[in-house]
Amino acid sequence: MYIALAGGVGGAKLAHGLSLVLHPEDLTIVVNTGDDFDHLGMRICPDLDTVMYTLAGIANPETGWGVRDETWNFMAALERQNGETWFRLGDRDLQTHVSRSCGLSDGQSLSEVTAALAAGHGIRHPILPASDDEIMTMVRTPEGKLPFQDYFVRLQCAPRVRSFDFVGAAHAVPAPGVAEAFAAAAHRGTVFCPSNPYVSMGPILAVPAIRQAIETRTRPCVAVSPIVGGVALKGPAAKMMEELGHAPSPVAIAEQYRGLIDGIVIDTADATCADAIEKTGIRVLATDAIMRSDADRERLAGETLSFLTELA
Amino acid sequence: MYIALAGGVGGAKLAHGLSLVLHPEDLTIVVNTGDDFDHLGMRICPDLDTVMYTLAGIANPETGWGVRDETWNFMAALERQNGETWFRLGDRDLQTHVSRSCGLSDGQSLSEVTAALAAGHGIRHPILPASDDEIMTMVRTPEGKLPFQDYFVRLQCAPRVRSFDFVGAAHAVPAPGVAEAFAAAAHRGTVFCPSNPYVSMGPILAVPAIRQAIETRTRPCVAVSPIVGGVALKGPAAKMMEELGHAPSPVAIAEQYRGLIDGIVIDTADATCADAIEKTGIRVLATDAIMRSDADRERLAGETLSFLTELA
Repeated sequence: MYIALAGGVGGAKLAHGLSLVLHPEDLTIVVNTGDDFDHLGMRICPDLDTVMYTLAGIANPETGWGVRDETWNFMAALERQNGETWFRLGDRDLQTHVSRSCGLSDGQSLSEVTAALAAGHGIRHPILPASDDEIMTMVRTPEGKLPFQDYFVRLQCAPRVRSFDFVGAAHAVPAPGVAEAFAAAAHRGTVFCPSNPYVSMGPILAVPAIRQAIETRTRPCVAVSPIVGGVALKGPAAKMMEELGHAPSPVAIAEQYRGLIDGIVIDTADATCADAIEKTGIRVLATDAIMRSDADRERLAGETLSFLTELA
Repeated sequence: MYIALAGGVGGAKLAHGLSLVLHPEDLTIVVNTGDDFDHLGMRICPDLDTVMYTLAGIANPETGWGVRDETWNFMAALERQNGETWFRLGDRDLQTHVSRSCGLSDGQSLSEVTAALAAGHGIRHPILPASDDEIMTMVRTPEGKLPFQDYFVRLQCAPRVRSFDFVGAAHAVPAPGVAEAFAAAAHRGTVFCPSNPYVSMGPILAVPAIRQAIETRTRPCVAVSPIVGGVALKGPAAKMMEELGHAPSPVAIAEQYRGLIDGIVIDTADATCADAIEKTGIRVLATDAIMRSDADRERLAGETLSFLTELA
């Protein structure tokens, strides 16, 4: 059984790849909740949704969020009412937020609501929030602290980042099933999907029991680099790295995960980084790390699992 | 200044007609809230919405509820998730419920939220809920007490009705502006729009201060009959009358409003009822009471106001 930690588009793609090569009982997907926020009276969990829609095969490939074949009539009505339209909510997508909010206000936990939504989409692989406790990513910038969605969506990542706070993480406990997966006899290894190391992986790794389970691991852990050829395949990871004083490369990713990973999967375009990384004791697999198709996702997942076996 | 009490499709049509012949400051529309309910975590106010959409010119003429040119992708997504789909919510319509629920949970009153939504639709005539206090219509049937929407939508009005409870009405106070309108020096008369006398007008008239203002009126009050030729133009009014032991006719409507009205507008098809009604001291105006077009709404509104002037 393998554990995948994921958030964002790249993370969702590899989690999908892993679901194509592993049986549901052999994979536990743990998802970032630091981006979650309340909007228009609803609880919105962007990374859980992206993973769910991707595994259900209904993710919107153009936007990287929401569902495909979407319509926008709710949004058009909201715009005519001068409502808050900076965060786009499609008509089909809205069902997820309405049903989730309804479940939460009925007293269900985020994991319970997530399981019900995923089951409704026919997903059999478990998708777990990192924690049922609220974790809120705050971005420190020269203009002050910003809630993540303000930074990410409303301000389009324009402010320079200085650091991140994961409010609530220090006292958060892993959602049911997460610590159990790390402790399971069947556990064979952990994959950090190619997600933003700061704002997608950061909040998951800020949950003390999750971090500790990885720091004290007896099974290998590998990261798949979200940086290829000096750029992030999606999102602000490279921009953030530069603003934090790191050249965007798999070397900086490996450094960020020091003590947590035994190996890193990088793209062949970055093969020249391998030596620098291996000198720090982290093994490197260089392969085609760009997932253009479902076949790519499946291949990269398979290679990552073989790499884990090699490191065992 | 005139006050119109309204609920449902017929009520909304005449309220619209009145808005076509009266300036915003000369009309106060007071709307039934007994149908309001919580659904999917949202507060839904069907009669306020029907009046608002009708005055905004965007009501759906086929359904009698919701907005025209509607799409149903939220509903389709909910159906795939095996969600509660018995109450249909269109994608555009959903904005009203989301924005209202958001406003209410931010601490705004129902009147404040209603005013903001109506303003957003460019409506200048005041639309007021009968009360900001919750009033919940319960339908007593041989199978027990049913919340109104269960009876009306889910069970399609199939159960026989025995009586109605307006839970909360006895302690409800009129929404801001309602009692003031009745007490205003400028008040010239009140119109009971052609709405269901039990479940649309009933909850409004069950608010003690509203009932008392009408019972002790110094300005005339007229009802427009929702029954024409023995049938309700829309909805279950005729079926309810039969189940309560009354032949569906303007005579029974006048009887239901005894002590509250000075006159009733009936359709020429029911002109033979006029004598029986006038014997009870209620004056009758027989005219074309069916509103097929905006011109009909405007004409009937004008005739109703002239009738009020005659009764003054």
